[in-house]
Amino acid sequence: MESEVIVKARAAHEAARQLAAAPTELKNRALMYIADALEVHRGDIMSANEKDVDRARAGGMGEAMLDRLSLTEARIKDMARGVRQVVGLEDPTGICLDDWNRPNGLHIRKITVPLGVVAIIYESRPNVTVDAAVLCIKSGNACILRGGSESIHSNMVLVSVLKEGLSRAGLNADGIGLLENTDRALVKELLTLRDYIDMAIPRGGAGLIRMVVTTATVPCIETGSGVCHVYVDKDADLDMAVRIVENAKVSRPSTCNAMETLLVHQDVIRPFLQKLMLVLTEKQVELRGDNQACAFDDSIKKATEVDWGTEYNALIMSVKTVSSLKDALDHIRRYSTHHSEAIVTNNKKTAELFLQDVDSAAVYVNASTRFTDGFEFGFGAEIGISTQKLHVRGPMGLTALVTYKYVIHGQGQIR
Amino acid sequence: MESEVIVKARAAHEAARQLAAAPTELKNRALMYIADALEVHRGDIMSANEKDVDRARAGGMGEAMLDRLSLTEARIKDMARGVRQVVGLEDPTGICLDDWNRPNGLHIRKITVPLGVVAIIYESRPNVTVDAAVLCIKSGNACILRGGSESIHSNMVLVSVLKEGLSRAGLNADGIGLLENTDRALVKELLTLRDYIDMAIPRGGAGLIRMVVTTATVPCIETGSGVCHVYVDKDADLDMAVRIVENAKVSRPSTCNAMETLLVHQDVIRPFLQKLMLVLTEKQVELRGDNQACAFDDSIKKATEVDWGTEYNALIMSVKTVSSLKDALDHIRRYSTHHSEAIVTNNKKTAELFLQDVDSAAVYVNASTRFTDGFEFGFGAEIGISTQKLHVRGPMGLTALVTYKYVIHGQGQIR
Repeated sequence: MESEVIVKARAAHEAARQLAAAPTELKNRALMYIADALEVHRGDIMSANEKDVDRARAGGMGEAMLDRLSLTEARIKDMARGVRQVVGLEDPTGICLDDWNRPNGLHIRKITVPLGVVAIIYESRPNVTVDAAVLCIKSGNACILRGGSESIHSNMVLVSVLKEGLSRAGLNADGIGLLENTDRALVKELLTLRDYIDMAIPRGGAGLIRMVVTTATVPCIETGSGVCHVYVDKDADLDMAVRIVENAKVSRPSTCNAMETLLVHQDVIRPFLQKLMLVLTEKQVELRGDNQACAFDDSIKKATEVDWGTEYNALIMSVKTVSSLKDALDHIRRYSTHHSEAIVTNNKKTAELFLQDVDSAAVYVNASTRFTDGFEFGFGAEIGISTQKLHVRGPMGLTALVTYKYVIHGQGQIR
Repeated sequence: MESEVIVKARAAHEAARQLAAAPTELKNRALMYIADALEVHRGDIMSANEKDVDRARAGGMGEAMLDRLSLTEARIKDMARGVRQVVGLEDPTGICLDDWNRPNGLHIRKITVPLGVVAIIYESRPNVTVDAAVLCIKSGNACILRGGSESIHSNMVLVSVLKEGLSRAGLNADGIGLLENTDRALVKELLTLRDYIDMAIPRGGAGLIRMVVTTATVPCIETGSGVCHVYVDKDADLDMAVRIVENAKVSRPSTCNAMETLLVHQDVIRPFLQKLMLVLTEKQVELRGDNQACAFDDSIKKATEVDWGTEYNALIMSVKTVSSLKDALDHIRRYSTHHSEAIVTNNKKTAELFLQDVDSAAVYVNASTRFTDGFEFGFGAEIGISTQKLHVRGPMGLTALVTYKYVIHGQGQIR
């Protein structure tokens, strides 16, 4: 007997052909129907979600996680609003990226087209179900969704709502497939199904991402994990540096674009920490420093080798003193996850050297790392943040969900 | 003890930092020195190559393969000329792909940068050693080369020549690493070395490509295998169709862009085959057809299910009669390797439907599939032909060897 994965992936692969040919107007109509259906069926969605939340609470899930799992009436309204916003975005397909004639008369066009079937592997947040599916539809892709078992009831209802929208627009509802069996073995099957899956995107913690990247034989995008650095140079405006460091660490420590390690030039370590500690103590941030940082204040714990490579996702940060720009760059090269790094300096030459050498998706001068985000970049959507270098890097908007093909017109040319 | 793979990959990773920062002029100087060194050391190269050829001949290698392995004085001259041509190509790094301001005053630039370290896994042709390394240098990348054991002596001398060019230009010679131990286990180690390898590209037959794609946990590009189709529509100019089919099959049958399967609309099968057989019989092409094709001529053998999925790489082609465009498209969707497909028709509407539905890197109207090639596209170089959809599709020129980063300037912005 064929597995759920094969059956649904094959059906999605078939549906992808129709979705790829669907005009923008039709895809947008499906999205409007989905937004409406989310509101109409909000009662069903909340009841299903209640089952998930009850079970998770009984299983001992913490309050922060329970909050992420919960769907309230307001959150469902937000989801529907999000879907309607996607309607307003430009269709990423059918765009001519390049166009030229060859001496032999061939006319070559490079035109964006959907990828085909996108697999999204994610954890407990049920809003990813709607986000991911909607961006796939807009870009003409079918999708296979594999969410966490904690949110399975919510996801089943949400996917039936999504399918209703597709069907009402006359599109094949197989274009969205949810794996209802959340057995881990099926994920492996999904990630090696090269005949039907064109791209896999993990969304979740470091463990999930590592599993997807090392298991997949289908092309996949490494996303998310961020050991981000802020380097406060000797030529920094120290007040600006305090504001940036505070924001990068405190504004939302659980996100991948939050800062984990602060690097400070030795020439300014004392005056800078003096200013910074006033703010961070109040915000209850734990600091773990090297010897020079620890010498400054008893409250700073000693950092270990493990600290430099840790994404805390919490109100903890490591602090290292560096003797030069080169020293800072070497540290970043060793411990960075290639996500986002920032320098605070008023020295243009130093800034240029930093921008050149740092090998990360987003490199900042005098701004917080927290801006690495599809909405903050102005993409109007985000399906994740790529920390790899192939296909797409940094915040992934709708254009991350397309490839291109060469369309060539001739008049009988042979070679 | 550390393996050769780790030692060389780490050294390449270190050297990549310098190569990424090297200005165009310096990279070009290294290339000119390499071209000179190839000519100066042609005697050493030929002696080493002779060892490989002798051993391969003693081992029973066929003449066609021996020819591919052999380096003559003329071929070395051609190599050097090829390297000098790369000097004339545009540097693919440092190009601003996009550039915008956000309402909060952040200025975002999307700038092309080298990937880092590229691993190339290839078979017996030693010219790939020089081609691949030179394109990596031009694009600011380091590389790790793993050629076949048959050409190891040639490759060792060629790589010492390449390193000489790098050193003479003041660049770190570790930027080019050759795996001298051709043990298969080391390939697996290379393909899973995520800390040091940024991209892997296989160049060779279907077996090699499959091995790389299913083994690699580093990002990789699926290249090359091509079951390409030509569809002769009922509205085709049949004389043009004969020329295109002949060219696509006969001009160089061993290449991945050669046609393997001919699809013919039933309304024109008889007159078309009549014209085509005159040409193909003379060229000694073996035809394997479906019932309708076989009924036309006794010399046409019966095709089996296996034929439709076979890349013959030889003067053999399969022929299938279709009753409609839809029928042709369904066949292509089932058996294509997403490389190149062509339609011959004078009907614009039919051509448009074909271009829309076919999910391949290059789709042609009234031209031979043989044009899917970096040089024929005008890229001035080619490092392979991608049959996957992520990062790069179709012929890969220098731009396939770069990624981008976002460079963001602020004035203290926080979120």
